[in-house]
Amino acid sequence: MKFARLGPVGAELPVVVGDDGVRSLAGLTEDIDARFWESDGPARVAAALAAGDLPPVDDAGSLRIGAPIARPGAIVCIGMNYAAHAAESGAQPPTSPVIFLKAPNTLAGPNDTVTIPRGSTKTDWEVELGVVIGKRASYLDSPTDSLDHVAGFVVANDLSERAFQLEVSGGQWSKGKIAAGFSPVGPWLVTPDEVEHQKLALRSFVNGEPRQDSSTGDQIFDVATVIHHLSQYMVLDPGDLIMTGTPEGVALSGRFAYLRAGDVVEVEIDGLGRQRQEYVAFEADR
Amino acid sequence: MKFARLGPVGAELPVVVGDDGVRSLAGLTEDIDARFWESDGPARVAAALAAGDLPPVDDAGSLRIGAPIARPGAIVCIGMNYAAHAAESGAQPPTSPVIFLKAPNTLAGPNDTVTIPRGSTKTDWEVELGVVIGKRASYLDSPTDSLDHVAGFVVANDLSERAFQLEVSGGQWSKGKIAAGFSPVGPWLVTPDEVEHQKLALRSFVNGEPRQDSSTGDQIFDVATVIHHLSQYMVLDPGDLIMTGTPEGVALSGRFAYLRAGDVVEVEIDGLGRQRQEYVAFEADR
Repeated sequence: MKFARLGPVGAELPVVVGDDGVRSLAGLTEDIDARFWESDGPARVAAALAAGDLPPVDDAGSLRIGAPIARPGAIVCIGMNYAAHAAESGAQPPTSPVIFLKAPNTLAGPNDTVTIPRGSTKTDWEVELGVVIGKRASYLDSPTDSLDHVAGFVVANDLSERAFQLEVSGGQWSKGKIAAGFSPVGPWLVTPDEVEHQKLALRSFVNGEPRQDSSTGDQIFDVATVIHHLSQYMVLDPGDLIMTGTPEGVALSGRFAYLRAGDVVEVEIDGLGRQRQEYVAFEADR
Repeated sequence: MKFARLGPVGAELPVVVGDDGVRSLAGLTEDIDARFWESDGPARVAAALAAGDLPPVDDAGSLRIGAPIARPGAIVCIGMNYAAHAAESGAQPPTSPVIFLKAPNTLAGPNDTVTIPRGSTKTDWEVELGVVIGKRASYLDSPTDSLDHVAGFVVANDLSERAFQLEVSGGQWSKGKIAAGFSPVGPWLVTPDEVEHQKLALRSFVNGEPRQDSSTGDQIFDVATVIHHLSQYMVLDPGDLIMTGTPEGVALSGRFAYLRAGDVVEVEIDGLGRQRQEYVAFEADR
């Protein structure tokens, strides 16, 4: 199944997206959130669909697409998880997953306009496979247990300001990762049964020109390994979002210009959908 | 005023703590959270107190003390914010605030038992002045604007696992900062009018022996500077918690042993109260 959230910021309507159109989940859940996953949400949606209980959303095409999940308790990111991206960043591939966090209030819709932060000269894109947790994970015994804790997969753009992240940060990356709107997610959350999550092509484009073009098969640490590893260091809660790292082809490599006002970034993952963001200057937002 | 939350984990009762005892805020707010700060909570409490509208909590002394704030949207930490601690950590004092994040689900009550993480040999204490945001802060013009965005101050223990933080982290500290229970906060939130927040003595003790003993006056970047700085890189939301860094006297210095099962840590800040945690082995928790 595909879940989405449609409507204005802060007032998104949870929906299920099917071959025969978009149907409202308003009668079934308040949101696509921890409570939804903890209460067997997808099974309840499947039953309601089969019973014909979900009303169509006739104006779906005219609504803003929000992030397909409510604001998570945590956004956990894996750094340098593709060897070629580590190389373009001037780093060795890690021998153990590198963890950093984004502030949950960076979550944004997939097509929301992005304001380049005040003073930014190095705003950069990163297409990533996002994993949404469906069931609490703590000290998992084995990576083979991990996928049982996954609610679904999403496209994520892990936006970064490289000067903030690397030049004025004392080495801690989060400073360049937490600007408003820096985590566009969606358009949909796709349940695990519908994708082969380690065989997905992921790509990014700036003003229509290709930038990243890789496969989740190239991850150094696959999703199961990442979840198992994280669960040794933290409690992953339902609704939490993991961004699993980005492949080569970002501006940090030196091969491409950083983002400027007027640029358009598109990121996509096969089966999970496509995002399109216009970038505007800080002043234009005031 | 002093606010607190009393009762079992996940079902804490919001209260105000006064000279004449503890009074329930159940009729006035659901929790000590963003909505409370956004709706002029402290002024409404003052009015209700004056009107005699708040019922006493007669069994307050027998209730568990929770963190005095609901789970925040973000826990933002400032690293190396006391020169002597930077030195004992083998680092130079930073020239710009160093930011890292903890997962919000690490929040714990001030006296909750702490489980030493599985595989940990280097669990360490850090007494810190915690600042709770009361009003959204984004791109503040000047540090003189910062304190208007503060709801209050709390004692925080920024627990750390140094091997996770420094030896298997690829340099990103969060891996050693996000274990369950690693952010004891409280006992109270104290409103800004009641403390001189840059003149507070802060101390820690292990098994009754002194460890840290410093003053918030020794911070490299004071609270106003920290909030102004953070607001240039992120949006600080009501209810967010900032941990402003720890002074010298932690185990990382090499002068003291790391924590072991059976140890008792106490941390305190003058005017903000005292915490006491017993540490237990991972196995004992299963």
